[in-house]
Amino acid sequence: MADWNPALYTRFEEERTRPARDLLRRCEFPLDRPFEMLRIADLGCGPGNSTALLAERFPGAAITGFDTSEAMLEAARARLPQCRFALGDIAAFEPDDPFDLVFSNAALQWVLGHRTLIPALMRQVAPGGVFAAQIPDNLADPSQVAMREIALEPDFAPLLAGDVERREAIGTREDYYDWLSAAGRREVDVWTTIYNHPMADAQAITDWFSSTGLKPFIDPLPDDLSERFKARYTQEMDRRYPVRADGRRLLAFPRLFMVARKG
Amino acid sequence: MADWNPALYTRFEEERTRPARDLLRRCEFPLDRPFEMLRIADLGCGPGNSTALLAERFPGAAITGFDTSEAMLEAARARLPQCRFALGDIAAFEPDDPFDLVFSNAALQWVLGHRTLIPALMRQVAPGGVFAAQIPDNLADPSQVAMREIALEPDFAPLLAGDVERREAIGTREDYYDWLSAAGRREVDVWTTIYNHPMADAQAITDWFSSTGLKPFIDPLPDDLSERFKARYTQEMDRRYPVRADGRRLLAFPRLFMVARKG
Repeated sequence: MADWNPALYTRFEEERTRPARDLLRRCEFPLDRPFEMLRIADLGCGPGNSTALLAERFPGAAITGFDTSEAMLEAARARLPQCRFALGDIAAFEPDDPFDLVFSNAALQWVLGHRTLIPALMRQVAPGGVFAAQIPDNLADPSQVAMREIALEPDFAPLLAGDVERREAIGTREDYYDWLSAAGRREVDVWTTIYNHPMADAQAITDWFSSTGLKPFIDPLPDDLSERFKARYTQEMDRRYPVRADGRRLLAFPRLFMVARKG
Repeated sequence: MADWNPALYTRFEEERTRPARDLLRRCEFPLDRPFEMLRIADLGCGPGNSTALLAERFPGAAITGFDTSEAMLEAARARLPQCRFALGDIAAFEPDDPFDLVFSNAALQWVLGHRTLIPALMRQVAPGGVFAAQIPDNLADPSQVAMREIALEPDFAPLLAGDVERREAIGTREDYYDWLSAAGRREVDVWTTIYNHPMADAQAITDWFSSTGLKPFIDPLPDDLSERFKARYTQEMDRRYPVRADGRRLLAFPRLFMVARKG
């Protein structure tokens, strides 16, 4: 897959940051713990949107953002010189010392095997600490179904067959509750929020996913076919997201949240 | 229907207040408008949980809570002497002057005909003002389906037949978006959050709904049958909400939110 494009990703920053803010709001620490003592990890930090929120919320904390994309890490470093950023794979996250907050906004969906991943991440949380994650839960939505269907069309299937990185279905809220609460004394909170982003037109929906969900479909294609794939996708978005009373489209976007506190 | 029981209703205050807080967080006013100038209406204020949040968030504002239950209003007055509380029916809400914020937490589901109600409430909002509401969206959930099914059992059907106040299905997020954005320059935000409340056992789920959703079913019954209805309901909750890894039950509770700002 081509490296991520920080400029395109940040185009919808306000919308993409809202879930991170909602998640962060549920990460509370006892008032007697000064922020300067907190060690925080931001897994899959991207260009640093979520890391910036963490730095604003916990001034003085030692914050490290991890990502597998050098382009994203460079953008994050330029934006937040007070934080550390390191190349790191979530699937192999085994720090020398545990963190007080292991935070991950819209990244775990790219890692397989949550049944083992989630307990493994929880083990990196220090006693009294918090694990907090948000995962897009939109695989069954028209926006995602359409990309998989277009990939099967004759124009694209020969080039994409077997090659498309399919995201594994994530667990249910009940699964995450069980995986997080099974071992030891834990307080676990799981919820889903279905945001509805008003989009100017169908093209805007294509732009939204061009920097994320569409990447595995368009990156393997030569430029002309990649453009054709996006044009087909815009047609489908036009059909599947009807015009609302004010002329815009409502992009429903379900996201699953989990916050677990170690006793 | 018997009058509401403020003590029972407030037993799950923390859980019931969370959606009101989430709603309130999206009600923002320009910084140049001092709170003292704001006129706020809390429709279906109950014992004042949501009104207390409004008073905390907008100190100095003129806040009036409306409810159809005198018992609830009495409880609210005792709790919040700085606010006004008045008997008022949401369906006929036509104040002399518009409000800067028309707020309603978990009340509109008791009023029929949202297609006309929602635009009517929006008309009571002053220019630059906000309409903000949260509605439980759980009619298709096991907790609600079970009450309707039990009401059809031979023990209860003769006493409840035709008598049970059935809540009308509420609209979709797209409906509310259209109803709120159709007229005039508006910014509309609609979303759903599915909370998951960990409950000690099945009985706790019965207790939760005894003060709200179960009322239309158990209030018309004599005491012994009302107790029998609740016992049957607890059996069903035991069956329909399986024990999780930590021994508790997860009560999923979807709630629909809408916030509209008048241009």
